[in-house]
Amino acid sequence: MKPLFKDTLKIVNVGLAGFGDNVVAAGGECVALTWQPPAHGDRDAAWALAQVLNDPTIEEANKVAFARLLEANPVLIDVAVARDVMPAMASGRKLILHAGPPIAWAAMCGPMRGGILGAVVLEGWADTTDDATRLVEAGSVALEPCHHHGAVGPMAGIISPSMPVWVVENATGGNRAYSNFNEGLGKVLRFGANDRGVIDRLRFIARDVAPTLRAAVKQLGRIELKSLMAQALNMGDEVHNRNAAATALLFKQLAPALLATDVPRERAAAALNFVAGNDHFFLNLSMAACKAMLDAAGNVPASSLVTAMSRNGVNFGIRLSGTGDRWFEAPANPIDGLYFPGYSLADAAPDLGDSAITETAGVGGFAMAAAPAIVKFVGGTAADALHHSLRMRAITLGANPSFTLPALDFAGVAAGIDARKVVDRGILPVINSGIAHREPGVGQIGAGITTAPMACFGAAVEELARTVASSATRAKQ
Amino acid sequence: MKPLFKDTLKIVNVGLAGFGDNVVAAGGECVALTWQPPAHGDRDAAWALAQVLNDPTIEEANKVAFARLLEANPVLIDVAVARDVMPAMASGRKLILHAGPPIAWAAMCGPMRGGILGAVVLEGWADTTDDATRLVEAGSVALEPCHHHGAVGPMAGIISPSMPVWVVENATGGNRAYSNFNEGLGKVLRFGANDRGVIDRLRFIARDVAPTLRAAVKQLGRIELKSLMAQALNMGDEVHNRNAAATALLFKQLAPALLATDVPRERAAAALNFVAGNDHFFLNLSMAACKAMLDAAGNVPASSLVTAMSRNGVNFGIRLSGTGDRWFEAPANPIDGLYFPGYSLADAAPDLGDSAITETAGVGGFAMAAAPAIVKFVGGTAADALHHSLRMRAITLGANPSFTLPALDFAGVAAGIDARKVVDRGILPVINSGIAHREPGVGQIGAGITTAPMACFGAAVEELARTVASSATRAKQ
Repeated sequence: MKPLFKDTLKIVNVGLAGFGDNVVAAGGECVALTWQPPAHGDRDAAWALAQVLNDPTIEEANKVAFARLLEANPVLIDVAVARDVMPAMASGRKLILHAGPPIAWAAMCGPMRGGILGAVVLEGWADTTDDATRLVEAGSVALEPCHHHGAVGPMAGIISPSMPVWVVENATGGNRAYSNFNEGLGKVLRFGANDRGVIDRLRFIARDVAPTLRAAVKQLGRIELKSLMAQALNMGDEVHNRNAAATALLFKQLAPALLATDVPRERAAAALNFVAGNDHFFLNLSMAACKAMLDAAGNVPASSLVTAMSRNGVNFGIRLSGTGDRWFEAPANPIDGLYFPGYSLADAAPDLGDSAITETAGVGGFAMAAAPAIVKFVGGTAADALHHSLRMRAITLGANPSFTLPALDFAGVAAGIDARKVVDRGILPVINSGIAHREPGVGQIGAGITTAPMACFGAAVEELARTVASSATRAKQ
Repeated sequence: MKPLFKDTLKIVNVGLAGFGDNVVAAGGECVALTWQPPAHGDRDAAWALAQVLNDPTIEEANKVAFARLLEANPVLIDVAVARDVMPAMASGRKLILHAGPPIAWAAMCGPMRGGILGAVVLEGWADTTDDATRLVEAGSVALEPCHHHGAVGPMAGIISPSMPVWVVENATGGNRAYSNFNEGLGKVLRFGANDRGVIDRLRFIARDVAPTLRAAVKQLGRIELKSLMAQALNMGDEVHNRNAAATALLFKQLAPALLATDVPRERAAAALNFVAGNDHFFLNLSMAACKAMLDAAGNVPASSLVTAMSRNGVNFGIRLSGTGDRWFEAPANPIDGLYFPGYSLADAAPDLGDSAITETAGVGGFAMAAAPAIVKFVGGTAADALHHSLRMRAITLGANPSFTLPALDFAGVAAGIDARKVVDRGILPVINSGIAHREPGVGQIGAGITTAPMACFGAAVEELARTVASSATRAKQ
């Protein structure tokens, strides 16, 4: 037989491995490309994607939204009590905020339930967690997402009316965002613990720490969070799971300012010791800063920029700028993590918390190249850290030059997730995450890396396609 | 003609490039190896090297010295006045310490002269720098190296009797090391400035800052410098030219401690603001810690471990453990650096200061992989930073597991320079350095990377060979 090809075949095989096998069997060379169809093969999402890829309306909208994200300048301007700054709490309404998209009490995971019961006791609406359970099951306590009130909270994300919150303002756009105070590690409310020690610590934070730090913030006028985060990214933090440098830099501003106030010395010392004793203290400020940046980029009609990614312990939810307050949800992906001694995947609650707002803004997992030391906490190698930051460039609208990565010669972090690119390229946003025990009261049992589920992005792109199509129809009429 | 070789030649050419050119001209392939003979071709040094390479006495001595270096545990135990802890100053003797190996006044560079004159005025031995010049030229002021008094100082390294010093103790061996206080950037004594503002700042440090920080140190009992430096290396510092994280971590310990003392609030605030305002504040503590570690490894007979590298603005000097207090000197190499706007190499003083004690201990330039952000200050790329840290492995006795490099997957820093390996491999220790203006009073004009000159190591190896040979002869007698 006469050969069909003159030279030995050297091919790249996309799709079924079987095609390549035949070439190799016939003496050729084959490289298998690990390719998947768009939307991981979801036909509806892929069809919607075809409608919105390269759509000039969306491209223009994304330019506007991305510019607002980059121009946002989050500054800490105050410390307040939640009910004083959140109108929905002002009336004395029994309202508790939680992480993630909306979820009913009956469907909630253990840590979120534990956190809510603790907050009910903290507020004095019940004396015991048993009484609190009855109250919540009777529907007497409203449970709503932090994100619906301009707020974010790590893990269970519990914010109740008497809790102190950070008040962060985007100095460019004027929008504000809130977050609760970080309690430290171990048995804490955000991991579902709610015993006497947890409640006492929350009272100490509200009574002693928050008013004292408020005095320092007022003395300083404001604290520039954007530049502080930028410095921390050059000091080994990714300002999600590692905040050691950011906390130290914050402390270095707070302490001299506090000495210039009339706060009594013992009170100042107690607050400063609390901050100095918790390397994660800055996390909640990082989250509020990211929320303020992303809210600035929100509600631009037709924009496919992702403005929120969040987990309620059951579902993962995202929001797009062009689809406003609507959530697109899917079951959370598992966390590939390092567990503390004695714990394993079987003990873990599903992915939980609003803290993926950091990745949504281009830091956290997106900035892992800044924080090779994080791999000791979440697993992997220094090369993995670089790889994560580089890979995220494929699904974002650009880079944020304000947040630089020294290990990549000061390239800006990949920022502004484009839901279309996630669906098109099959590359999922990477997220650094703490791992909570599935039972309330145990606390953190590890940390690791997870991804946002594809189905959220597919659903979001489908809705965006509908929105853009109907706008175009209206425009023609 | 019948060809001599059957296949095309593929050769590695070592030495004269001309050999390789002929092969390429004849159709072969050639890779030129950039090789130099040992000691960069210094025949006497290379001959001495042959005598001390693989010498069992030296190998054993190096094991002892290197173990002492690794086991050393530098802790800050006190803040004192120089004359109270340095016996040579106790008698009221007019003694001023300077950086580097010994050097006569007439031979000193501009910044060192400026610093000495400022110290004479500070001490009240003269009213003006003109009077001070006459006093010094008359030989009425003793000028000796910091290293001869257990001390180290950056740049000009000026320590005079009334100056406050950090007291660092090696908790393992009990030996102590001292360093002066960091004045901040700009016009400062260590860069040769000596005007009224410089003297006033030194008085403020001695009167207000040092006693206040002493109270904080006494309150804490001690500050563990080794673990603090280890943390800083995981936070983007190399603890020589970048100390932002280390300073913040130190501050985070000092501030709450200070509030627990009876130091008046305004005094505490003044001292804390001084520390918080200078990201290089920790440098002098890093240097004293390194000096304490290296002194612990000193005076081990026959050891080729380098215990000091230092510059007096004219010559570069090194000391070996096995040759005790003897200096081996050579003219300093130029600095490959980034200059502040308006300045260039023509304005630069030669390499200056005791701060290369950090590289001698395995941090600074040896730990550049920890600090990719340093390249914005000293030049180069993030890849260069990794390369420097990897290359230093070729000239050290091992790695220090206490000081890890996240970007190299937590490998320990290359530590314990073996003078024999420097001579044998022709690889020079890399040093991060500030650049002083050649005229006193101008201050810092840049920063960059330099190397220790080969001639120091050649001379040291020659002396070591003589020492070991004579010991062996005595042992046989």
